[in-house]
Amino acid sequence: MAEEKVYKIAVIPGDGTGPEVIREGVKVLDAAAERFGFKLSYNYFDWGGERYLKTGETIPEGGIDELRKHNAIYLGAIGHPDVTPGILEKEILLRIRFELDQYINLRPVKLYPGVWTPIKDKGPEDIDFVVVRENTEGFYAGGGGFLRKGTPHEIAVQESINTRYGIERCIRYAFEYCRKRNKKKTLTMVGKTNVLTYAWNLWERTFHEVAKDYPDIKTDYAHVDATCMWFVKNPEWFDVIVTDNMFGDIITDLGAMIQGGMGIAAGGNINPEGVSMFEPIGGSAPKYTGKNVINPLAAICAGMMMLEHLGEEEAARAIENAVIKVCRDHLKSLSAGKMGYSTTEVGDLVANYT
Amino acid sequence: MAEEKVYKIAVIPGDGTGPEVIREGVKVLDAAAERFGFKLSYNYFDWGGERYLKTGETIPEGGIDELRKHNAIYLGAIGHPDVTPGILEKEILLRIRFELDQYINLRPVKLYPGVWTPIKDKGPEDIDFVVVRENTEGFYAGGGGFLRKGTPHEIAVQESINTRYGIERCIRYAFEYCRKRNKKKTLTMVGKTNVLTYAWNLWERTFHEVAKDYPDIKTDYAHVDATCMWFVKNPEWFDVIVTDNMFGDIITDLGAMIQGGMGIAAGGNINPEGVSMFEPIGGSAPKYTGKNVINPLAAICAGMMMLEHLGEEEAARAIENAVIKVCRDHLKSLSAGKMGYSTTEVGDLVANYT
Ligand SMILES: CC(C)[C@H](C(=O)O)[C@@H](O)C(=O)O
Ligand SMILES: CC(C)[C@H](C(=O)O)[C@@H](O)C(=O)O
Repeated sequence: MAEEKVYKIAVIPGDGTGPEVIREGVKVLDAAAERFGFKLSYNYFDWGGERYLKTGETIPEGGIDELRKHNAIYLGAIGHPDVTPGILEKEILLRIRFELDQYINLRPVKLYPGVWTPIKDKGPEDIDFVVVRENTEGFYAGGGGFLRKGTPHEIAVQESINTRYGIERCIRYAFEYCRKRNKKKTLTMVGKTNVLTYAWNLWERTFHEVAKDYPDIKTDYAHVDATCMWFVKNPEWFDVIVTDNMFGDIITDLGAMIQGGMGIAAGGNINPEGVSMFEPIGGSAPKYTGKNVINPLAAICAGMMMLEHLGEEEAARAIENAVIKVCRDHLKSLSAGKMGYSTTEVGDLVANYT
Repeated sequence: MAEEKVYKIAVIPGDGTGPEVIREGVKVLDAAAERFGFKLSYNYFDWGGERYLKTGETIPEGGIDELRKHNAIYLGAIGHPDVTPGILEKEILLRIRFELDQYINLRPVKLYPGVWTPIKDKGPEDIDFVVVRENTEGFYAGGGGFLRKGTPHEIAVQESINTRYGIERCIRYAFEYCRKRNKKKTLTMVGKTNVLTYAWNLWERTFHEVAKDYPDIKTDYAHVDATCMWFVKNPEWFDVIVTDNMFGDIITDLGAMIQGGMGIAAGGNINPEGVSMFEPIGGSAPKYTGKNVINPLAAICAGMMMLEHLGEEEAARAIENAVIKVCRDHLKSLSAGKMGYSTTEVGDLVANYT
């Protein structure tokens, strides 16, 4: 008999409702593992706002190296009402993305049957695309500075740093993904070539050059402002989108909304050659903490993406089908407190169907 | 008898369908002028793609100074399929904004009764807010450059330049506007304080300091990514928004979509102490050119904003009421070719009701 596969997962439940949704995610992951004959072994990391407030530490020394010993990272939510915005995001979330070189942020925007979308006349056949967001450079590199700070003559410069290396690997990933996905075989670059003429000129040149290696993929371009309009008016136009870090941040939140909101939207921070991290994209939702009312489906979907990434395709599909069943046959709404079920009950339902 | 007021208007019909919609705008402006006892005298400027392709010139020498001699500028659309994207935008549209120091881009997002919005369960009482976009700095300053261009080691830097001076005058304008508007008396700053920590730190400090002069106005803050979600899910939360040039560009296009699209959305590029420019925000729509099917309402609304700016409040309200009547009682759709009326007929209808 073949040896059982064991995946080592670093779990960072984080703040607020993070631990609650991760608990349900782990429940579902374990159900899938049992059914499909593999094992998941979890190491928990208590990083987040609570720990920071107590110890002043965000990620302890050697913490990033600990993460490297795992097959994947499963993250709840980072963000605490008593911590100045920016600290935890930068020192935990963004630091992991950067130091583990998770250069792809992968965000499927898929409306499941029965899920309420705020936009009219569009169904699951219309809302089904994927955003490939560059995840390690652009504005997120953090360049910039102040001149004459605090005076009436102050100037603040914010820099977006874009490299051929970083853009090319991201664009290649997007082309490969588009080929594999095999839907409309269309990759749309989303940018602002007519105003950000340095950054997007490099993106544009790289896009056209890499495209030559993918003659089977159609290419398209849209300005970021227009893209926001089409997400709402004609989401069916999109198949795979590739964009930079900042624009990706913006359009994927809009994408989350049209696929049903923060209750369902998940993403992966991917290093194809390293350790990747999967997360529900909603925040820590402090006001719902501990009430057992938050929707765990986004965390469950993040877990599903993680299994897919680990190569457990069948298990991932089983979770997806279970999520679809629960959305279609059970939940009254995907919003916290309005589901008609508690957090734990939703986790149980999905686990049972998996 | 008092002398008749005469406003000198510089008209730039521009490319594509620009001239068609401007023609209807002028028709309506003249109807309003006649009814409310003032005059508009128009000087036409043939700037745009056609002229550029023929002469290589975008704005001829002394052109900007010519504009300065007017009370306002009325613009159709700039953009030509045979001209590389960026040239006309930068050398005409952005150049006018910058050289005339039109530091405010004012974008009312208002759903008129009877107008179709792509979002569910929201009506005119829910979609009624105004975006005040900084219009002369940030990324649009054009800073940046390339290093090792064309090599695998290329780096492209794009800079956002933000000044206390530029931010403060924009924020003050927004507070004043909010006070005058007198709806919810809430000004929301939209930014990305947790990642763009230089630019948005300056915005944040300036916002809080200026707020002290407006104790009657409530202040709020939202990240740009979350804002896109709320535009679609809870647009009723907003009253007046202030944001930077790039984020303003993105969220106002999304705003245009929820208010009914490019057929109706208009904006003003305002220099409160100088010459301001008003424009429909859609593009030149080359494929509809010359067919008499494009919707002129956005250009008509831009004209209405221009009159309001010139102090002709009553005339502006008369145009707005006429637009509302036409939307509610006549048009089948606001989209080009689907209105049930031609471009000229829509202009006639609005002019008659004005
Ligand atoms: C929390 C924040 C720093 C983060 C980002 O801007 O990337 C988030 O919005 C996201 O999209 O994952
Ligand atoms: C045409 C383009 C340069 C312009 C901008 O980005 O400002 C447009 O999108 C707008 O919003 O007026």
